[in-house]
Amino acid sequence: MLLCDIGNTSYDFLDGDKNYKESVKTFDPKRVKQKVFYICVNSKLKEILKDLPNWVDISVHVDMKNYYETMGVDRVFACEAVSEGVIVDAGSAVTVDVVKSSTFEGGFIYPGIKMMEQTYKNISPVLDYSFNFELNLDIMPKNSQDAISYGYLKTLYLEVISHGMKIFLTGGDAKKFAQIFPHAKVDEGLIFKGMKKIIKKADLC
Amino acid sequence: MLLCDIGNTSYDFLDGDKNYKESVKTFDPKRVKQKVFYICVNSKLKEILKDLPNWVDISVHVDMKNYYETMGVDRVFACEAVSEGVIVDAGSAVTVDVVKSSTFEGGFIYPGIKMMEQTYKNISPVLDYSFNFELNLDIMPKNSQDAISYGYLKTLYLEVISHGMKIFLTGGDAKKFAQIFPHAKVDEGLIFKGMKKIIKKADLC
Repeated sequence: MLLCDIGNTSYDFLDGDKNYKESVKTFDPKRVKQKVFYICVNSKLKEILKDLPNWVDISVHVDMKNYYETMGVDRVFACEAVSEGVIVDAGSAVTVDVVKSSTFEGGFIYPGIKMMEQTYKNISPVLDYSFNFELNLDIMPKNSQDAISYGYLKTLYLEVISHGMKIFLTGGDAKKFAQIFPHAKVDEGLIFKGMKKIIKKADLC
Repeated sequence: MLLCDIGNTSYDFLDGDKNYKESVKTFDPKRVKQKVFYICVNSKLKEILKDLPNWVDISVHVDMKNYYETMGVDRVFACEAVSEGVIVDAGSAVTVDVVKSSTFEGGFIYPGIKMMEQTYKNISPVLDYSFNFELNLDIMPKNSQDAISYGYLKTLYLEVISHGMKIFLTGGDAKKFAQIFPHAKVDEGLIFKGMKKIIKKADLC
């Protein structure tokens, strides 16, 4: 079974237990001849894939009544994979979603690492630092790098732990955030898990 | 007594109880003939003001041992005004500083409203919203505008209240943040208060 999670920059494939990426800019989906179950946040690509009969959009099989219309489909599928917990999906944005008794309770969007580092740099060139993920979040900072790192990380940390639930980390920067959330479960395949669940539920395969 | 707090974009004057601003781009400091006690975060302007004998830099009179070298002088003077509390100075950046028993304990830097709205817009055009300051922070969002507003505000809120101290709001966006921190004391003249305290301590006037 071939799965594909399509973002704004890449096609993320799962073929059995083999994971690989292709660039949205250069990859031609017509090259795939076998059946692909996919989800896609990229509306332009969705139009193209509609006309390819072996590309099957599985997002139509999700019961959307608990989600909201403009919510990214990747967030929806990560939620489908979890019955209870806070899901932190760290990419160009960090999305934080709460699931209780297999029901989406709501969520929020926070900037990803690169975007937020750029923001501080734009505020002032003296704030042009990479974030320090080894920061002790229990101590108020007394230097510029830690002052922005704490501003980015401690604030997010406090919200995420405030739910008192199990934390799931996914997305490209999951391992970095694992330094801040040492008790979290890192699961980079969470979206694929959600996809498999929906495929099974809808009896597609 | 004429006071001036100089930022990167404006000269903020206090003349008795009259407050007015001049643009850094257009204002010529030589036009002021009377004595001005000032602080200045703008290093280029500092060089120019050095040569004007009626412009008196009062930052040299602060005991800097509890602060850190690269800390903005505006933050230092806001801290000097307060003996106990959390100071939230909301401008192009939001700085949050903790003072206990008249001693600076540390602080952090968070992006200001405009910078953060721009960040979300850069992540995706579907996140191009103004923040909703009337958001109920006790409810997890289920729409895009609230998802970014909550991401910006609830995270900051939880850190600021975690200190369990009196909250002082200052800076150009103080009144907006007062909606999130209803028990905070809004004091837009906090930096001037710190300046007056230092002038008195150093017996300059």
